[in-house]
Amino acid sequence: MTGPRYTQLAAALPSTVPFVGPETQERARGRTFAARLGANESVFGPSPRAIVAMEKAARDVWMYGDPENHDLREALAEHHGVPSENVVVGEGIDGLLGYLVRLLAAPGDPVVTSDGAYPTFNFHVAGYGGRLHKVPYAGDHEDPEALAAKAADTGAKLIYLANPDNPMGSWHDSDSVQRMIDAVPEGALLALDEAYLELAPDGTAPVIDPDDRRVIRLRTFSKGYGMAGARVGYAIAHRDLVAAFDKVRNHFGMCRTSQAGALAALGDQAYLAVVQETVAGARDELSRIARLNGLVPLPSATNFVTMDCGADGAFARKVLSELVSRDVFVRMPFIAPHDRCIRVSAGRPQDLAHFASALPEALAAARA
Amino acid sequence: MTGPRYTQLAAALPSTVPFVGPETQERARGRTFAARLGANESVFGPSPRAIVAMEKAARDVWMYGDPENHDLREALAEHHGVPSENVVVGEGIDGLLGYLVRLLAAPGDPVVTSDGAYPTFNFHVAGYGGRLHKVPYAGDHEDPEALAAKAADTGAKLIYLANPDNPMGSWHDSDSVQRMIDAVPEGALLALDEAYLELAPDGTAPVIDPDDRRVIRLRTFSKGYGMAGARVGYAIAHRDLVAAFDKVRNHFGMCRTSQAGALAALGDQAYLAVVQETVAGARDELSRIARLNGLVPLPSATNFVTMDCGADGAFARKVLSELVSRDVFVRMPFIAPHDRCIRVSAGRPQDLAHFASALPEALAAARA
Repeated sequence: MTGPRYTQLAAALPSTVPFVGPETQERARGRTFAARLGANESVFGPSPRAIVAMEKAARDVWMYGDPENHDLREALAEHHGVPSENVVVGEGIDGLLGYLVRLLAAPGDPVVTSDGAYPTFNFHVAGYGGRLHKVPYAGDHEDPEALAAKAADTGAKLIYLANPDNPMGSWHDSDSVQRMIDAVPEGALLALDEAYLELAPDGTAPVIDPDDRRVIRLRTFSKGYGMAGARVGYAIAHRDLVAAFDKVRNHFGMCRTSQAGALAALGDQAYLAVVQETVAGARDELSRIARLNGLVPLPSATNFVTMDCGADGAFARKVLSELVSRDVFVRMPFIAPHDRCIRVSAGRPQDLAHFASALPEALAAARA
Repeated sequence: MTGPRYTQLAAALPSTVPFVGPETQERARGRTFAARLGANESVFGPSPRAIVAMEKAARDVWMYGDPENHDLREALAEHHGVPSENVVVGEGIDGLLGYLVRLLAAPGDPVVTSDGAYPTFNFHVAGYGGRLHKVPYAGDHEDPEALAAKAADTGAKLIYLANPDNPMGSWHDSDSVQRMIDAVPEGALLALDEAYLELAPDGTAPVIDPDDRRVIRLRTFSKGYGMAGARVGYAIAHRDLVAAFDKVRNHFGMCRTSQAGALAALGDQAYLAVVQETVAGARDELSRIARLNGLVPLPSATNFVTMDCGADGAFARKVLSELVSRDVFVRMPFIAPHDRCIRVSAGRPQDLAHFASALPEALAAARA
């Protein structure tokens, strides 16, 4: 037997993965990390009310989750002041981006993103055979004008923009993003990834217009709400686009515990406010540690601080490797010139203390 | 703005969903069900050890799940006596079937299934543009010989067979299934959906040969293990096919609580044995209730009993509707002649008592 016959597309796909998980590294090292600051998870955890809701839902897990995600969608609709017909819930932004790319990008269809932006988006575009066009960042910011121009040039069906940005932590204000929405060429859709929005200053997100066919807003419970392992993302878009997700999504794909947890987390905005304060404090402390060691912390509207190590990618990779060998899990941007930096997530005092103690040693070792 | 430009395939897809959830019906009725016996969930719940593991994991949900599902794959590999390179974990069998269809079925590619078999498989095939060829059941059984013959005729890349079968509850013994595997034409792959296997008699599943390129075995924690709402399925197949899933799967798609729960559930085989006994008892009781009311219960190797109402689809649909209006959630096969039946999941004594009390009234009302 020769075995199954893959599609031409599947056969041609590389076997790369977007990210290596920290557990994989721990298994390879034979040692767990002392500080887990590499995946922009929220070590402060979800709201205690979300934990209680998930504990309670654990007993109900014999039931499939509601395939309509009704209660969560209604709550999100109320929270954002939009009709629930404009809200789709899915398996994290990753899952929703996969469905979105599938809906729009047939093999060869042009898609635009920034060179060095979120690799999981690129993974999906490659996976469906879309043709990815990349524009450079403008310094440490994604470049809305360049994205819009490239989309017009290529006839792109889909444009990706993260605001705030990962991996650089930079952001545009709401007026700039609104200008980007207004610049979306006819027949294109802007996928506006606002995963980190809850950690950004007021005035970062333009007002959501649920009737605007040019943009889909992607949000998540993975970052500010501290529920990365529950896989709950959502998107707000024109109701026709939201309805189109029903054609392809895994209708019974949401975990019942996650639905319950997200609903409770959304209802505890007071806890989110505490996390926002705490993350702001951690960013300040990370910036202080960076400066103390001669690194330049970049301004951040996220739950991480990207630190310029002051040399090239090879040097930053050495610093990262030395941090990892000192049990601090961090990551770094993939491409130049951003790979002059390392990226460190907000942590508790004990996490930051680990980092503070490991960083000077790591820098010294990298320079040696 | 005209809005986004969907792919030709997406634009042509109907907006149907494979199943309407019970919560949707409850919202429409304005009343909850007294007995939830329609989705073949396991009302007996997961192992208490799985519940504890999920409760504990709720606090850790700020972390992404391990994208390699390492611990669960290792445990499954040991449980089945196969290398872990032959095991892929995914978001339920639904999620894994979606990836599988995506890997194999390009638009127009032939796929074979039985007319009346699992509609979510058909949803995926349609969703990727595959061309679905259906063969009739042989009575109340899927027909392996007809499936193999149709696959040879059409040059099918993928063949779907559920053993035990849903919605009929019927099954083939391991020798018959092995003959089906041996009859898979060159270049085809058999997707052997064994979702209900834990509820079937010994001798239902052929020995798993992880080096056999002709078949992928799909299993789940949703049925016997009672964790439908946790979305944990897995498949055992040749390592090349397992590796191919990495090209398209949502690497960070598994919930951390679900990974922990499934691992604990797998480790509690004593609880599974109790569920198996309990389900067998509930099947007997459901069969007794059916007979008492003049219906013919079909033999079942699953956690449900399909009951022949003795007339046509219109009558069975009336019976179903009358049961639903009496707060008993049940479902029925979609197509003739199977739609002469209703399908009732195993339940606790109180669930079955509800059904026993509602059935004679429902039958009388349907006959009136």
